[in-house]
Amino acid sequence: MRDVCVIGLGLIGGSVLRAAATAGRRVWGATDSAEDAEAARADGCDAGTDVAAALRRAAERDALVVLAVPLTAVDGVLGAVARHAPEVLLTDVTGVKGPVLDAVRRIAPAARYVGGHPMAGTAKSGWTAGSPTLFAGAAWVVGVERDTDLAVWREVAALALDVGAHVIPLGAAAHDETVARVSHLPHLLAAVLAAVGAYGGPLAAALAAGSFRDGTRVAGTRPDLVRAMTEGNREALLPVLDEALGKLGAARGSLASTGGLAATIQAGYDGSHAVDRHRSAARAGVRVDLTAPEARDGLLALGERGGRITALEGGVAIGEVA
Amino acid sequence: MRDVCVIGLGLIGGSVLRAAATAGRRVWGATDSAEDAEAARADGCDAGTDVAAALRRAAERDALVVLAVPLTAVDGVLGAVARHAPEVLLTDVTGVKGPVLDAVRRIAPAARYVGGHPMAGTAKSGWTAGSPTLFAGAAWVVGVERDTDLAVWREVAALALDVGAHVIPLGAAAHDETVARVSHLPHLLAAVLAAVGAYGGPLAAALAAGSFRDGTRVAGTRPDLVRAMTEGNREALLPVLDEALGKLGAARGSLASTGGLAATIQAGYDGSHAVDRHRSAARAGVRVDLTAPEARDGLLALGERGGRITALEGGVAIGEVA
Repeated sequence: MRDVCVIGLGLIGGSVLRAAATAGRRVWGATDSAEDAEAARADGCDAGTDVAAALRRAAERDALVVLAVPLTAVDGVLGAVARHAPEVLLTDVTGVKGPVLDAVRRIAPAARYVGGHPMAGTAKSGWTAGSPTLFAGAAWVVGVERDTDLAVWREVAALALDVGAHVIPLGAAAHDETVARVSHLPHLLAAVLAAVGAYGGPLAAALAAGSFRDGTRVAGTRPDLVRAMTEGNREALLPVLDEALGKLGAARGSLASTGGLAATIQAGYDGSHAVDRHRSAARAGVRVDLTAPEARDGLLALGERGGRITALEGGVAIGEVA
Repeated sequence: MRDVCVIGLGLIGGSVLRAAATAGRRVWGATDSAEDAEAARADGCDAGTDVAAALRRAAERDALVVLAVPLTAVDGVLGAVARHAPEVLLTDVTGVKGPVLDAVRRIAPAARYVGGHPMAGTAKSGWTAGSPTLFAGAAWVVGVERDTDLAVWREVAALALDVGAHVIPLGAAAHDETVARVSHLPHLLAAVLAAVGAYGGPLAAALAAGSFRDGTRVAGTRPDLVRAMTEGNREALLPVLDEALGKLGAARGSLASTGGLAATIQAGYDGSHAVDRHRSAARAGVRVDLTAPEARDGLLALGERGGRITALEGGVAIGEVA
């Protein structure tokens, strides 16, 4: 199995390091955070603060490098990759894919890069919050672009599968638009609802019940984490935010003019049931030969229909789709 | 203890009938729904479909009449009250208070009316969905206006306390604005989010995680129930909807211009924690003498600060407030 070098040992990077080690891989990590490095060493892991040395070792051993730093730190680490391991196998775990893909093309263009995004996390952060089982049962998006080298794609997908996730093959643009829709917009609506509710003071708190609690739950997430993911996905988030504003404005207009909210409420009811139906739809087995010329199209067709890869058998990806 | 006559034997009315009987009161009910009446009789309750007879009996026995019909049916039942029990003790359990208060003043002005709203419910409806413990631990708003007769208020509060709820004394306008904020707006935001998410198809369903599930949970509520409460509270809901639109529009503008969402996200985080703080604040005991001239102000000051009445001792209401 391919060696793994993780740069950044917070919640996600620290969990990748532990999960890959548990899967039987040789792993090492480095981080700018002396605190995370020390905590990792205290847990018996091969970890330090010398990012350059870790990358040089990755180049020597042809390891897979996992960038697990916040989006704002990606450019800096890519500079180190370009200097110390310019042609290395490279992936990342950042929550937006378009901006990272652009940065790799700009800063470390020779790296054999395929992006990734494990859809797992907790409200906590840092090495101590991580766990080798964080990715068990989670979706892990692995990027497919027109120019993706599927041998590299296979390396990244294999790591995701090794740590217990299933793989969703997806282009950066489709990923970023979809997370704007189902993750970033929910965080912004929760923030707006919490602010409107809080304006009602202690009386609002006394009358708030299930609908308010559910609708504001993620508003308690650390603001810097929410800012990083939403602001980092600005380009894809703006049109989704406009969709939501349009629908809420239409509800306002209809309530003010005719007094009716039927269209808004019915669309929400239908939408909620449609999402549930997609989730519970019967799925059929699919095989994608990664060496075939149409393999990229096969992977994208699978991912864009909500399908997933669950195993690799040599050069064949085994999956399921509704 | 005062006899109780419940008109409407769905989820809430049926639960009031059962809970009041369990508390040891003599109870009877009537409903337009032959199905609910039959189900109530099958459970051994004194129930039928002759609303006029039930109201005449209430007038004879000076019972407390509880209107437990949807807002759209309130005017019709108030007409029957005006004909058959014009001066009866009267309350209701409708989710909006201003429109019902107006209707009582217009249609049954001689009724000794104080409005109510038990903050309890389930996604189900009808007699069979009800339970004698539905109100255990719930908040029950009991209306206080400038002209409220506190002897009537005491009768309504006593029923709420008897069935296990605590009482929040509140004017109709404050009630309607606050439920718009913490209940009706959450339903509309959940509907918008579910519609935007569903537009992303099976891929969105595959990537949707906790934030989307929490944010859309109430979008699965029966559309006619959500319409009834939101459309019925139009006047109070419009300005709250404008607040939400203003905040979401400000987020959109900031993201488009500077790329920053700090203000939106921090306000949501602070709001969410402020609501939690109000909920867990230490509370001191309060006594309001219902026979004192300033009793109405005392009750309103308590309710508007998120306080509650937990018992009645003769003419004194015992409560707590932060």
